[in-house]
Amino acid sequence: MNILVRVLVLKALFLCLTGAAFAESLLSWNDGAAKTAIESFVKRVTDPASKDFVRPEARIAVFDNDGTLWVEQPMYTQLAFALDRVRELAPQHPEWQQNPVLKAAIDGDLKTVAAAGEKGLLELVMVTHAGMTPAEFHTVVTDWLSKAEHSRFKRKYTDLVYKPMLELLSYLRDNGFTTYIVSGGGIEFMRPWSEKVYGVLPAQVVGSSIKTRFEIVDGKPTLEREPAINFIDDGAGKPVGINMHIGQRPIAAFGNSDGDLQMLQWTTAGDGPRFGLIVHHTDAEREYAYDRTSAFGHLDKALDAAAAQGWTVVDMKSDWKTIFPPAK
Amino acid sequence: MNILVRVLVLKALFLCLTGAAFAESLLSWNDGAAKTAIESFVKRVTDPASKDFVRPEARIAVFDNDGTLWVEQPMYTQLAFALDRVRELAPQHPEWQQNPVLKAAIDGDLKTVAAAGEKGLLELVMVTHAGMTPAEFHTVVTDWLSKAEHSRFKRKYTDLVYKPMLELLSYLRDNGFTTYIVSGGGIEFMRPWSEKVYGVLPAQVVGSSIKTRFEIVDGKPTLEREPAINFIDDGAGKPVGINMHIGQRPIAAFGNSDGDLQMLQWTTAGDGPRFGLIVHHTDAEREYAYDRTSAFGHLDKALDAAAAQGWTVVDMKSDWKTIFPPAK
Repeated sequence: MNILVRVLVLKALFLCLTGAAFAESLLSWNDGAAKTAIESFVKRVTDPASKDFVRPEARIAVFDNDGTLWVEQPMYTQLAFALDRVRELAPQHPEWQQNPVLKAAIDGDLKTVAAAGEKGLLELVMVTHAGMTPAEFHTVVTDWLSKAEHSRFKRKYTDLVYKPMLELLSYLRDNGFTTYIVSGGGIEFMRPWSEKVYGVLPAQVVGSSIKTRFEIVDGKPTLEREPAINFIDDGAGKPVGINMHIGQRPIAAFGNSDGDLQMLQWTTAGDGPRFGLIVHHTDAEREYAYDRTSAFGHLDKALDAAAAQGWTVVDMKSDWKTIFPPAK
Repeated sequence: MNILVRVLVLKALFLCLTGAAFAESLLSWNDGAAKTAIESFVKRVTDPASKDFVRPEARIAVFDNDGTLWVEQPMYTQLAFALDRVRELAPQHPEWQQNPVLKAAIDGDLKTVAAAGEKGLLELVMVTHAGMTPAEFHTVVTDWLSKAEHSRFKRKYTDLVYKPMLELLSYLRDNGFTTYIVSGGGIEFMRPWSEKVYGVLPAQVVGSSIKTRFEIVDGKPTLEREPAINFIDDGAGKPVGINMHIGQRPIAAFGNSDGDLQMLQWTTAGDGPRFGLIVHHTDAEREYAYDRTSAFGHLDKALDAAAAQGWTVVDMKSDWKTIFPPAK
């Protein structure tokens, strides 16, 4: 029997004997309204004597990724990846010089790339993410993440995850929740590292995707990533992605931007106990401060909705003792 | 603590103390090559001392549904559902009389419906499965299954599941596998009952789907099922559906027809220990006998591939002591 099973057994026994809810695990959260709201919700849905008790199979929590679990400034990590990759592959693709968006990306002219909007970003994603198998893409992503550094913090991107949110993921799982990522980011960009970094298995990652085709190549069954959008898991796409992948309405949703609005609406509109939370980036010193006017992680309508709907708003500056895990 | 957690704890403790693999749970399987192949594979991948040991997170088993877990003759259950439903709704849709396929379905002229091929079937699915929320569709499916009876066995469809396969699902889960359904049938046609009947949670069901749209209706966040195909999870679609939903290559695949061929190829072509199995319907007396010439559950190329690839072929007549669970 392996370590994981042993740990699960010990946890189960511990729960048997004590009924403890592992509240002591939210160590990086300051005492305050946000922490209290989380603990109170978890207590209500896990206490068999509570009228709000929810059976473990229905304890589903969904988390946005960019800006909710890891840094999204000064740009989405996946965009940094696409930019590095377009520059790396450019010598083999002289035809890219004829495409204004790709040329701008190669030249590092981010303003032109940004001005091309979603269509420009998609174009960038197509040429850098397709034309290989999922396994090959997995390797490309893993290699890049092992080397690339964030421009300000000079740390690997997978180190720039929010420690309080890692604790929250574990706390929920310790209390019988299944935790899902539901992100506008690429599903196959996140899966190579989501288990190691977040404890979230590949099957529990929902994201945007390009089309994939199955065929037998030289006698070998092969999946090939194609340069065509399959699904955009953002905004009104998030409840659709949740319905497709999870097939149950979550009871808790965690986001940080207007791209999470519909996920929070869909989650909290269900019957019974519901929980919605928004991470508000208020800490320019330790991380970033941005909301209504930001290009990445634009938070405007969802902030108003939080007030109207009673969702918990995390004030990063005052609610979090620590932002990132300590450097190793 | 609820019963389920108690049972899990007891199972975990039992595993701790004995390392037992619950082999005694395949009670409806006759001793023979098929049962031995299953037990030997499970033993190899769960024994930490084996060079073929697979960690629990990678122990993924995928099961076709129609003809692999439940009866698919004389027609797919979902087709029987669509036919009943088109007749039920026909009085409100006089325009359906102008459509040859829908008119044939209403009149019970199955020959004309069948002659319309996949396109005809899709037309039938569109008009009977869309125009409502997933929750409403869930209710429609549940209501129908609670009343409808199989024409030959005079039992509810959810009673016409294969007892040996139910035991196999449990046996794999007891050995740390996660079991998925990967079916050409509708994902939202299976999810309402998959947990109760198979112990397979909604998130572990992969299937065909129509498009779903999110919108706010009268202030209420709503998902609406639309009359447009989203994904066909059959044939070459199965490895694509697996990659999308599970994000890992399974180590074991179970099917019964050519629609499962690519799923079996994809699963068994991976590195390390792999297992492929085909249920061969050879028992006209207790169930049905069909393969190379059958319209439903057509098994031709996959049967040849099984011999060439060394996949296990279950001879229903000789390998299974019982076909269905006893009537209650």
